[in-house]
Amino acid sequence: MEKLIITAAICGAEVTKENNPNVPYTVEEIGREAEAAYKAGASIIHLHVREDDGTPTQDKERFRVCMEEIKKRCPDVIIQPSTGGAVGMSDEERLQPVELLPEMATLDCGTLNFGGDEIFVNTENTIKNFAKVMNEKNVKPEIEVFDKGMIDYAIRYAKEGYILEPMHFDFVLGVQMAATGRDLAFMVDSIPAGSTWTVAGVGRYEMPMAAMGIAMGGHVRVGFEDNVYLSKGVLAKSNGELVEKVVRIAKELGREIATPDEAREILGLKKK
Amino acid sequence: MEKLIITAAICGAEVTKENNPNVPYTVEEIGREAEAAYKAGASIIHLHVREDDGTPTQDKERFRVCMEEIKKRCPDVIIQPSTGGAVGMSDEERLQPVELLPEMATLDCGTLNFGGDEIFVNTENTIKNFAKVMNEKNVKPEIEVFDKGMIDYAIRYAKEGYILEPMHFDFVLGVQMAATGRDLAFMVDSIPAGSTWTVAGVGRYEMPMAAMGIAMGGHVRVGFEDNVYLSKGVLAKSNGELVEKVVRIAKELGREIATPDEAREILGLKKK
Amino acid sequence: MEKLIITAAICGAEVTKENNPNVPYTVEEIGREAEAAYKAGASIIHLHVREDDGTPTQDKERFRVCMEEIKKRCPDVIIQPSTGGAVGMSDEERLQPVELLPEMATLDCGTLNFGGDEIFVNTENTIKNFAKVMNEKNVKPEIEVFDKGMIDYAIRYAKEGYILEPMHFDFVLGVQMAATGRDLAFMVDSIPAGSTWTVAGVGRYEMPMAAMGIAMGGHVRVGFEDNVYLSKGVLAKSNGELVEKVVRIAKELGREIATPDEAREILGLKKK
Amino acid sequence: MEKLIITAAICGAEVTKENNPNVPYTVEEIGREAEAAYKAGASIIHLHVREDDGTPTQDKERFRVCMEEIKKRCPDVIIQPSTGGAVGMSDEERLQPVELLPEMATLDCGTLNFGGDEIFVNTENTIKNFAKVMNEKNVKPEIEVFDKGMIDYAIRYAKEGYILEPMHFDFVLGVQMAATGRDLAFMVDSIPAGSTWTVAGVGRYEMPMAAMGIAMGGHVRVGFEDNVYLSKGVLAKSNGELVEKVVRIAKELGREIATPDEAREILGLKKK
Ligand SMILES: [Mg+2]
Ligand SMILES: [Mg+2]
Ligand SMILES: [Zn+2]
Ligand SMILES: [Zn+2]
Ligand SMILES: [Zn+2]
Ligand SMILES: [Zn+2]
Repeated sequence: MEKLIITAAICGAEVTKENNPNVPYTVEEIGREAEAAYKAGASIIHLHVREDDGTPTQDKERFRVCMEEIKKRCPDVIIQPSTGGAVGMSDEERLQPVELLPEMATLDCGTLNFGGDEIFVNTENTIKNFAKVMNEKNVKPEIEVFDKGMIDYAIRYAKEGYILEPMHFDFVLGVQMAATGRDLAFMVDSIPAGSTWTVAGVGRYEMPMAAMGIAMGGHVRVGFEDNVYLSKGVLAKSNGELVEKVVRIAKELGREIATPDEAREILGLKKK
Repeated sequence: MEKLIITAAICGAEVTKENNPNVPYTVEEIGREAEAAYKAGASIIHLHVREDDGTPTQDKERFRVCMEEIKKRCPDVIIQPSTGGAVGMSDEERLQPVELLPEMATLDCGTLNFGGDEIFVNTENTIKNFAKVMNEKNVKPEIEVFDKGMIDYAIRYAKEGYILEPMHFDFVLGVQMAATGRDLAFMVDSIPAGSTWTVAGVGRYEMPMAAMGIAMGGHVRVGFEDNVYLSKGVLAKSNGELVEKVVRIAKELGREIATPDEAREILGLKKK
Repeated sequence: MEKLIITAAICGAEVTKENNPNVPYTVEEIGREAEAAYKAGASIIHLHVREDDGTPTQDKERFRVCMEEIKKRCPDVIIQPSTGGAVGMSDEERLQPVELLPEMATLDCGTLNFGGDEIFVNTENTIKNFAKVMNEKNVKPEIEVFDKGMIDYAIRYAKEGYILEPMHFDFVLGVQMAATGRDLAFMVDSIPAGSTWTVAGVGRYEMPMAAMGIAMGGHVRVGFEDNVYLSKGVLAKSNGELVEKVVRIAKELGREIATPDEAREILGLKKK
Repeated sequence: MEKLIITAAICGAEVTKENNPNVPYTVEEIGREAEAAYKAGASIIHLHVREDDGTPTQDKERFRVCMEEIKKRCPDVIIQPSTGGAVGMSDEERLQPVELLPEMATLDCGTLNFGGDEIFVNTENTIKNFAKVMNEKNVKPEIEVFDKGMIDYAIRYAKEGYILEPMHFDFVLGVQMAATGRDLAFMVDSIPAGSTWTVAGVGRYEMPMAAMGIAMGGHVRVGFEDNVYLSKGVLAKSNGELVEKVVRIAKELGREIATPDEAREILGLKKK
């Protein structure tokens, strides 16, 4: 089996210090959490940034200083900024971190509810626009899909030339589509041959989904964005602790951990 | 196998006379199309209404006169108004036909893209609100799901008491989730025991999905809302022609057609 | 969608004139049934032969005269003899029709129960031996699988060089593995890219499985071997009637019927 | 999630001291391995027995002394003798350990190849006979299925009254049906509501399947019968080491381990 790529979603846009005081807001905290995850075995840092008070932002300068801080601490790690942004933001605002020419960035491939009156909007036009910009800038999209039909969108947009193949998917389960073995198996069966995939189980499904991802030969995302607990009722002290747990399970299953350069090889990234 | 319930989606909100001149706009045309579908074997009329110029509307009075016209022509048919409405409408506007106390109404169980910049918005709060109103008025929801995770929402809302069980699902395939045998089989496997289901394949997937629905023991929706062609390149002269085709396939497979009262029995409706 | 290949399993080894008086035993009857199926639209005749009293036989001479009778009546049809044989037969006995150099022959890819004390034996060594002989003689195997794991055997034997790719599978459902949409969808998802497939539903599952095979873009086998009824309680007058029903369903679904030469093209056969 | 039942298949009938010198043959060795597994967390010992030279046997007396040795060392463990036997054995020979009135025994639900010329024979009549005898003696069958269709047999035999519900299944994957996440998910989806299940991955699939079983809420079988390696190239020193690994993975995933009495509760066994 291929080596395991661990992505650490260290920050997110919705989780707060009220949920877990170790959620990073400041540049220093972002650096600290990225480093802890990297040292534990993460080869990709999935990155949202915040103002010092925790407010999520897509500000280019904030991304720049956070990315510099991460590179200073973990020189070879792959940084994958989010283009998710927040309600009401324009495409341009959301795309700011892509201007910094990261190796990867997220491409959310559909619109869905986020609870209450909230909607996470990614219209067809937005998706195609983001994909085009990423192609132009040689940024590999991590295609975030929250439901099966979003894979079908990605396949269609790839046929239409908007998304380049081979595609890399992130199955985010437990938000809209349930986080179960049958759901994960169905998703895996639904992507084109030659694609790679990562699974991110939300909340208490994080580690069961991680274990299945490891056992099924896929890759794994964990981190405060998806879950702040190390085990039932026990808050994780850092993203590093969550990554360490994944590494221990991988070791039990005989799956080696990919270094950032090995992850680049698997994902077809060219180190910049 | 249970008898086959055929739902005719005779009108829709997006298809126009430019697509097929037989798409009904006026009250008389709605009546004519409902009658053709009913005589061919449909036991449920899934109903959107239009102004005379084809503009979609949720106007209560327009629904009232259309429903009266349908009842005059097909006294025992089940009428299932749509609560889908159009972009920018409030919940109250969308819910108008439910005030007419139909036996069923649609409950769209999630938000998704409709192409370009368009989004079909059904927030969590809207879904719960619609479900509560339908329960209060003893209107059975047909739970429209466009992707697998929307089933998972319905299951959660049922657990929380918003949606009553047993649930009746309509799998609308070919919009977001692909319309294939494996997708349909996965959907069927995903609903709670005791639920009933219908499949609506969009565009050229209408009849393949109908055939699979018949063969798998589910129920079937066809009609101009989903597809205006009788066969490749041949426009259907009426919704009746589409229903007739379903009836012929059902006959080949030994599946009998449910009358409206048999459909009520299967779906647990009380005739009003 | 690819044109539809209809295989007619006109005779089988277990069904008798007691089940349906139109089951063919004699050379003339075999010819008559093959011709009826062919004229109705079958491009492949899946062939077992019998003594005049109905006893199944693998006798080379009996196969020869039956194949000549079929070719006389349907000059371009593809003949696919069975190598199934009967309990207690040696590999050599079972392989006799392959010596006649048909274009195809069946390769049963595993051992399973046939009810009571009966077992249909195909050991690993038998399967590998049959595959090798067919390769040497340029006879394309139709890989009969009665359960999912038999696909996994075929994949393994292909990797080991015993079976040549692309493979053509026949999913025989309703004997061991159930004949349902979810089972068929799972089988289809389990074969290597580039493979072709046919589905044969046994007994009352014949036509539902055929309809799903047509709708899912696969191919279809029907015939007295699998089912002797045209509809509930109504015996088919000939294999032709069963093929006609498949053709009618295909027509409703807009799927064209492959001629024998089109079937050769799809299956990669060279006309001999 | 339910607590995790770990079954230790400590001996098997085919693995030898040549494969791993710690494979138990003698009564003392059987006792030692059962105890190691039990102390590590196994609540069920799946038991084959051997002559002192390693020859597999179904001899009632040998089973009796081995079971007594196990009970002496692990008084409350559940013992589950195999009725698999060896090639050429009669039903009566195979059923001998059932006469000792264990709490459970295996019921292999179909016939399949074991490689080369070897077949593991379980005809329909054998299966029904074994099930009846177990029912009469109040021995709960662990229904061993090596392929999906064997579940369908079990469902049919349950409907016919031969097998009592709720059923407990053991999915043995990697012999006929492949040992992958999609196969396991499909099996789990295929058993009747209210059933319980265990997964046994053979060879290098043992631990990946165990991890998935834990994560999916099922139960797990490991042991020398299925796999003799602790990790790649490293022979396990005892069945206990394999169970310990399962316990570590379960702990990472927050799944508690069932005691024998908790396993009895889950499986509906009455302690004898
Ligand atoms: Mg696939
Ligand atoms: Mg199910
Ligand atoms: Zn994110
Ligand atoms: Zn509608
Ligand atoms: Zn045959
Ligand atoms: Zn065993």
